[in-house]
Amino acid sequence: MKKYIAGVDIGGTNIKIGIFDSEKIELIDKVEFKTPKRDQNQSIFIHVKKEIESIIKSLKIKMEDLIGIGVAVPCPIKNGYVFACPNLDWSNIDIVKELHKIFPSDVKVAVSNDASLAALGENESLEIPYKNAVLITLGTGVGGGVVIDGNIHEGSMGYGGEIGHMRVYEEKELTCGCGSRGCLEQICGTHGILEYTKQLAKKNKTTIDLNKLSVKAVFDAAKDGDNVANQVIDRVAKYLAISSSILAMIVDPEIFIIGGGVSKAGSFLIDKIEKYYKTEARFSSGNIPFILANTGNDAGIIGAAHLVKNTIKRNEKTDA
Amino acid sequence: MKKYIAGVDIGGTNIKIGIFDSEKIELIDKVEFKTPKRDQNQSIFIHVKKEIESIIKSLKIKMEDLIGIGVAVPCPIKNGYVFACPNLDWSNIDIVKELHKIFPSDVKVAVSNDASLAALGENESLEIPYKNAVLITLGTGVGGGVVIDGNIHEGSMGYGGEIGHMRVYEEKELTCGCGSRGCLEQICGTHGILEYTKQLAKKNKTTIDLNKLSVKAVFDAAKDGDNVANQVIDRVAKYLAISSSILAMIVDPEIFIIGGGVSKAGSFLIDKIEKYYKTEARFSSGNIPFILANTGNDAGIIGAAHLVKNTIKRNEKTDA
Repeated sequence: MKKYIAGVDIGGTNIKIGIFDSEKIELIDKVEFKTPKRDQNQSIFIHVKKEIESIIKSLKIKMEDLIGIGVAVPCPIKNGYVFACPNLDWSNIDIVKELHKIFPSDVKVAVSNDASLAALGENESLEIPYKNAVLITLGTGVGGGVVIDGNIHEGSMGYGGEIGHMRVYEEKELTCGCGSRGCLEQICGTHGILEYTKQLAKKNKTTIDLNKLSVKAVFDAAKDGDNVANQVIDRVAKYLAISSSILAMIVDPEIFIIGGGVSKAGSFLIDKIEKYYKTEARFSSGNIPFILANTGNDAGIIGAAHLVKNTIKRNEKTDA
Repeated sequence: MKKYIAGVDIGGTNIKIGIFDSEKIELIDKVEFKTPKRDQNQSIFIHVKKEIESIIKSLKIKMEDLIGIGVAVPCPIKNGYVFACPNLDWSNIDIVKELHKIFPSDVKVAVSNDASLAALGENESLEIPYKNAVLITLGTGVGGGVVIDGNIHEGSMGYGGEIGHMRVYEEKELTCGCGSRGCLEQICGTHGILEYTKQLAKKNKTTIDLNKLSVKAVFDAAKDGDNVANQVIDRVAKYLAISSSILAMIVDPEIFIIGGGVSKAGSFLIDKIEKYYKTEARFSSGNIPFILANTGNDAGIIGAAHLVKNTIKRNEKTDA
């Protein structure tokens, strides 16, 4: 009998649910809806359950054939427990317990951080997944996840893979959103890219229209040979390369995957990162390749589904 | 029937062998001898076998009660294979295969990097070992190891835990021994400490006798309030703190363990690191404690013995 897994990606704005077959983790159908705003400690889980029931009904799948639910959450989480969540009105909540309350007891529940699960999802979506992989996501913030021996690495407090807050340069004035200084995110996040563009544009000629400034505009100008834009993107690429050289000395992955909105710049960005990485990398680690993420916005639900599958597999081994 | 494990630590100068009981990994006896210099691709293994036979004979342990041999090697190693070793005349050699050739086939062999195994040894020697731990060793070089979920993390090419070569500062002139620039080792290794002392002493008064310059002399002077010495040690502590803040965002360990010759400076050094770490650490990761390594020179053999034990346990699980 065919069995199924639900992958859920809870965001501050939207919640996405995918239904996967439990063997190959192939996406059968998905649904996306607005994150309920009120009483989130309860409403989110009730909504998720309702939507899962509705989508499996439409697929003619029975609840008893749903063997697991994987959930990606937008905050640090350890053993299913969230202390605080900047994007949701959650505090001191055991997500696994909450889900167990409303789903049948034999449905396996596994929860982790969305960026970590995106790393797992991206890696598992490759033709041959790697044992060790690092995902760096570039967007408003810089995030990421670390896959070690095929599993996500949460760390002891859930900070495993907080790549955006690696301290990579000496910053005396500006403070990062995290409260510290010198974070990768301060250079490679949207804010850092736009501010550095404005700063350079004060003293240099540029084709960029500062009244319509966006990260896309900066990349487009760089591709067209604009000098200011290229200085900005070179700085982004250089510090991504430095961070990757550090990650190579700790995680030593087989692959770096670049994702997030900013990565839409495509091979133009990858080529620049690889150029700087060749200089920054230690020993023979300069051979680790960079690729673009390719699951689009589905990495979270795919990773969540794989997390459940891995958890079920691990339990079978331990039970044996 | 009691069973035993041998832990072997192969260095460029000496080889150390410890015999442990296989249950609690308690050290029963140990021996240390010079590393044979000629024909190392063969002689090292033959010597190790001879010494193991001799020590277990003296302990009245039969070869059939020796269930495993763990070996620490002073080079990057992956799946038992060494491509090149700066400290030994080894190249393209499968250490596991070589040991299997000369030991009975049912003796389990496990090999890994010495710094990684020291991390495992230090962690396992704690009253309650942590799941995730980082060891930073300070000596001529800066090394270390990463324990994740109770196992050492080798990485895909054996660079997992090459903490000394994390790029932590902008260095335009000086090159590290690894060939790159801006490595932690350039500040916190013996050479970096002594050179920075000389540099500061040119322009500042100091009680340090530059004709008898040593790392110990710098630490002693710092403890006595010497200004130059304190600037040097503060720089060491600051960059160890920066590196640790980065490790906290990737590995997110429960503990940082500081070892190696330089760590003999004791709580004076730990206190300085912790001071800077409180400033550098992101989010709530500033609470991760720093402790001094406490197995002395036995961390390698202890870690090697634990590696075999873990490997045997894992195989039992997989076989089940």
